[in-house]
Amino acid sequence: MKRIVILGSTGSIGRNALWVAERFPDRFQVVGLGAGKNVELLAEQVQRFRPRVVSVLTAELAGDLRRRLPSGTEVLAGLSGYQQVAALPESELVLSAMVGAAGLMPTLAALRAGKDVALANKETLVMAGDLVTTEVGRHQVRLLPVDSEHSAVFQALTGHRRQDLNRIVLTASGGPFLHASLEELQRVTPAQALAHPNWRMGPKVTIDSATLMNKGLEVIEARWLFDLDLSQVAVAIHPQSIVHSLVEYVDGSVIAQLGIPDMRVPIAYALSYPERLALDLPPLDLLAVQTLTFLEPDRVRFPCLGLAFAALKAGGTMPAVLNAANEMAVEAFLAGRIPFLAIGGVVEETLERHRSSPAVEVEVILSADRWAREEAHRIIDRLS
Amino acid sequence: MKRIVILGSTGSIGRNALWVAERFPDRFQVVGLGAGKNVELLAEQVQRFRPRVVSVLTAELAGDLRRRLPSGTEVLAGLSGYQQVAALPESELVLSAMVGAAGLMPTLAALRAGKDVALANKETLVMAGDLVTTEVGRHQVRLLPVDSEHSAVFQALTGHRRQDLNRIVLTASGGPFLHASLEELQRVTPAQALAHPNWRMGPKVTIDSATLMNKGLEVIEARWLFDLDLSQVAVAIHPQSIVHSLVEYVDGSVIAQLGIPDMRVPIAYALSYPERLALDLPPLDLLAVQTLTFLEPDRVRFPCLGLAFAALKAGGTMPAVLNAANEMAVEAFLAGRIPFLAIGGVVEETLERHRSSPAVEVEVILSADRWAREEAHRIIDRLS
Repeated sequence: MKRIVILGSTGSIGRNALWVAERFPDRFQVVGLGAGKNVELLAEQVQRFRPRVVSVLTAELAGDLRRRLPSGTEVLAGLSGYQQVAALPESELVLSAMVGAAGLMPTLAALRAGKDVALANKETLVMAGDLVTTEVGRHQVRLLPVDSEHSAVFQALTGHRRQDLNRIVLTASGGPFLHASLEELQRVTPAQALAHPNWRMGPKVTIDSATLMNKGLEVIEARWLFDLDLSQVAVAIHPQSIVHSLVEYVDGSVIAQLGIPDMRVPIAYALSYPERLALDLPPLDLLAVQTLTFLEPDRVRFPCLGLAFAALKAGGTMPAVLNAANEMAVEAFLAGRIPFLAIGGVVEETLERHRSSPAVEVEVILSADRWAREEAHRIIDRLS
Repeated sequence: MKRIVILGSTGSIGRNALWVAERFPDRFQVVGLGAGKNVELLAEQVQRFRPRVVSVLTAELAGDLRRRLPSGTEVLAGLSGYQQVAALPESELVLSAMVGAAGLMPTLAALRAGKDVALANKETLVMAGDLVTTEVGRHQVRLLPVDSEHSAVFQALTGHRRQDLNRIVLTASGGPFLHASLEELQRVTPAQALAHPNWRMGPKVTIDSATLMNKGLEVIEARWLFDLDLSQVAVAIHPQSIVHSLVEYVDGSVIAQLGIPDMRVPIAYALSYPERLALDLPPLDLLAVQTLTFLEPDRVRFPCLGLAFAALKAGGTMPAVLNAANEMAVEAFLAGRIPFLAIGGVVEETLERHRSSPAVEVEVILSADRWAREEAHRIIDRLS
């Protein structure tokens, strides 16, 4: 029986993780949940899974939640609440699946409390890869990837000698606008951008998939997760989302992980590692899929990918700035304030104005994050 | 420094293995070689690699070889010669790469002498899978696959829990006649059948690739190498020969090994396992390949695949009979005595006439092999 905490339980990853936990009641006990504002769904989850402690975004929401629940579940609020849930003494593994930069501090709290972390919140590594991997080493815990691409790389590395690794290739579906012209991209609406061809995910990551910023963030995440040089991470567009990523070894052998595009597979693997769970999902039928294709990413129509590589190369606080500016820009796009193609523009301009500092202290990173949000805000105001 | 023996050194696999050994002189010392009739090439190989002992097919050929060599290399002949080379006390690993049924006894000799065996001779497992895997267990040695498909499965199993395996999918290029009609197949010449689209291999395995018998033999080989049920081995046609095979796990994850179609990669992996060698071959460039396709095998135009499944299902000496009849039929086809489509017919008729016995003693297997050759010979005489 593994005792787990899920941070971000009402989001797409969190709900899928609870789907897994519910199907394997002999393997998982949910001891803590964290969610943002969706008190209604969280109350349902508490009724079903009976965690000892939960946390929500604000004290007001906590009060609302308490009124919906019978006594017996401790309800906390805010960052300190999330950090307490992340560090619950009885848990063994924390699924970090909050959206965006908000995931960093609770993830650090889990690592520092000696928990294994299943990481869906890529911003944690984008913002603070150096810091986080140092904590992982210091506390001798596991950082298990949840993103399908990083889970694929992790699985393709398992059992092979690290020193034989040549490079990794992260695959990207290319999103809904893979074949759209620059002119078409100009007129993209939020609804169009939210219609991902292969994956059902939350809105933020879906927009990031449409701009390819998601792949850029994943490049940075992979650099830290697998301790790679920038030159060892490549990206290939693979519209079918069947090959989730590949690892190339020095002898020319390439190991890949494939599967249907269903987040429950990598989520379950991270939760149950090193075991696999018989999830009873439809198997991958390559004879039905028939064709897998691979294309070079177009960095002109999708500048966000190049911006991410540039931010990683610049290092220090630059990736945190990239992430913060992108969060602001995506929010503005979803609110109808800026056009789709302006997302990359906002990020680029924010990066250009930033002077990077070493990102070895969390305060420096959070301050760069705040600075970038204000800067991006100003740029967005000017554009909208 | 690994001391190795190569049986079948003048064949395609053997020459590629020596290519590897020559490039990594600090890693490999060739202490023994076995070849058939190509004394000229073997003499060159002896000059280059200075093995202590070599063996050829007959005493006459041995005399010829001795005259070409300076003293210092012991020259043996025949089955006992091959068996002695296979069991050389100073060797650690034997590459078993003789063609056809002739490989069985030397491979058994290597296993019984406690050598790890890199197995390219699939007939060994097709004929005597039960016996051979029992010897592997008894002598606590490794049986390392050399076939690209089995090397792929081996690599895709490495590091993952055996009990999580669901099934394997062996890929097949489909050979040169993938899209040929039955009528076109009727008129196929040996030269056409020897022109494999992707792989450069010896003539026997190239014809087997054209009939899909090669994949059938590989299904049987895989059953024994990886201790699988018949129902756990599937075959998919994959014309590009890039995905060398796949392993499906219970959670729906599929791990695959990919690479350019070059036998030096799996050969080097078997020789250097668990390490990988930087072979300096052109890397797999999926962006250049662009498209990977997968098709159901057509069992009407390629009946040999179904015959192999049936022989495996029948068990006992039936796979040995399948193999022997096929060797005879391929030889007859290459000699222009029977048409291409008669290969399957000869095998099918031989199988129909055979009454299977348990294949737990080598004498029983060899006697079934002899019986099948005589039977197939008669059928071929009738047809030609």
